[in-house]
Amino acid sequence: MINKLVDKIKQKDAPIVVGLDPMLDYVPNFIKEEAFNQFGETLEGAGEAIWQYNKAIIDATHDLIPAVKPQIAMYEQFGIEGIKAFNKTVEYCRQKDLVIIGDIKRGDIGSTSKAYAVGHIGRVQVGKNSFCPFKEDFVTVNPYLGSDGVNPFIDVCKEEKKGIFVLVKTSNPSSGEFQDRLIDNRPLYEIVGEKVNMWGSECMGDEYSYVGAVVGATYPKMGETLRKIMPKAMILVPGYGAQGGKAEDLKCFFNEDGLGAIINSSRGIICAYKNDKYKDKGITEMNFADASRMAVIDMIEDINSAIK
Amino acid sequence: MINKLVDKIKQKDAPIVVGLDPMLDYVPNFIKEEAFNQFGETLEGAGEAIWQYNKAIIDATHDLIPAVKPQIAMYEQFGIEGIKAFNKTVEYCRQKDLVIIGDIKRGDIGSTSKAYAVGHIGRVQVGKNSFCPFKEDFVTVNPYLGSDGVNPFIDVCKEEKKGIFVLVKTSNPSSGEFQDRLIDNRPLYEIVGEKVNMWGSECMGDEYSYVGAVVGATYPKMGETLRKIMPKAMILVPGYGAQGGKAEDLKCFFNEDGLGAIINSSRGIICAYKNDKYKDKGITEMNFADASRMAVIDMIEDINSAIK
Repeated sequence: MINKLVDKIKQKDAPIVVGLDPMLDYVPNFIKEEAFNQFGETLEGAGEAIWQYNKAIIDATHDLIPAVKPQIAMYEQFGIEGIKAFNKTVEYCRQKDLVIIGDIKRGDIGSTSKAYAVGHIGRVQVGKNSFCPFKEDFVTVNPYLGSDGVNPFIDVCKEEKKGIFVLVKTSNPSSGEFQDRLIDNRPLYEIVGEKVNMWGSECMGDEYSYVGAVVGATYPKMGETLRKIMPKAMILVPGYGAQGGKAEDLKCFFNEDGLGAIINSSRGIICAYKNDKYKDKGITEMNFADASRMAVIDMIEDINSAIK
Repeated sequence: MINKLVDKIKQKDAPIVVGLDPMLDYVPNFIKEEAFNQFGETLEGAGEAIWQYNKAIIDATHDLIPAVKPQIAMYEQFGIEGIKAFNKTVEYCRQKDLVIIGDIKRGDIGSTSKAYAVGHIGRVQVGKNSFCPFKEDFVTVNPYLGSDGVNPFIDVCKEEKKGIFVLVKTSNPSSGEFQDRLIDNRPLYEIVGEKVNMWGSECMGDEYSYVGAVVGATYPKMGETLRKIMPKAMILVPGYGAQGGKAEDLKCFFNEDGLGAIINSSRGIICAYKNDKYKDKGITEMNFADASRMAVIDMIEDINSAIK
């Protein structure tokens, strides 16, 4: 799957991923009204609204992008009905041949991490049958529990040729509270980065490893160091755009081959219709997905001009 | 909810929680056969099997215990059908007036943690209506992202009088890989423990805080230090029994009031029927839940005799 991701990034000349994090406030009113007319102001109605919203954005952008990153919390908050919308979204993205990065940030002790791994990127056994309940291609993994918590995901990656992105340095303001603390004069995120490099060396695709890392666009200097510590890790970079990360800061996340990083934007793409920049181009709520397409084109240009 | 948990621990004289982590291998064959006859060897069949298994164990133990801790991964691995079984289990435990600790180990950046918090221990808004999709009383939270990731849970705890347990020192063998690393000559878990104490001081129940901590029974010396660092935190202690933690090591997790910790056992209780000790007492697969009851009684006695 890492080979597919690299190929698609090359083919589309777009090292980006669209974050499908559909907060209900983002969804245009006409979609919500339609969904609520059908199902009421219920969890089912919410699920229908975010699914229809996602579908329109996927339709408008899929030919330009290699991958999507649905954030499962935005679905899980609506319970079973939200998770149904998550599954519909994943299924639809598969039909469009997009690489799917499930932003689930799971991580637990061994047997429990194994359950998450088989459920999300592997197969779970029931009697003689096996099933793939969630069908993502990659998932994000929290490393706080150490190798025990990560290895079950890696085992499944090897079996299924799937991948993971381990949280190393997250994009949020307080990420430094623990991640930046110095251990033998080096911040914790570097120690975690070294582990990512070690875990990844055991399961290499052609150019990059099945084991990638999450490093926030908001911390470019740390990104530069981590790029060197984990030369074979694909770096998933959140925090561009709405969170404050700028294109000129992104160069350090890439290797000299022009590869090695994939930049996420969520709000900047899926909420582009609320941006004055696109309102001036004839965008209203009704053609919101056209704004998402314009924003994807702008983002690719912005990033490529900065990194090339 | 922390007051309810403390009251129930006192009332039942049982500082324990039963971990409802129903791996399919644990479920007696006759339950699986019945479920598979009805729904086939499918995800639905798996969901039905683990729900019937849980129900029998809850029926046999609820009067003895203050709380249960369903591990969501064991349900999530079966997709939507597994999560339905999780919800049925939570609902049934509510009917039995048990305190429900959702072992979900979530944690993300602010807006995303908020989504997890409202979905699991709060209310999610859909138009004019609000819903409680998952209905746990407490959830476990991963602190790797720092305060940003934890505060949204605390906000919801204050609104809803619910609680969290933050991972501080986990019970697994490799937990030390990052958690034990020294920062200014003190291990990371102590730094996290101090934050737990700080977060918790802002939302106190009568005796203990809404913000508790997870510390593994397998690390009693560290538990002793953490007990002092977080005097008002209820400590959720996994790792007793099957993972190797012994009753005599548990004293240090408790305060002088005899309170302040709640010891989890999962496999030791729900799989008691496979233990030779109970086989000798007339236990077969058919009356597996009676073995769970015997194991709960033995666990309470074992722990109380060690800590009193």
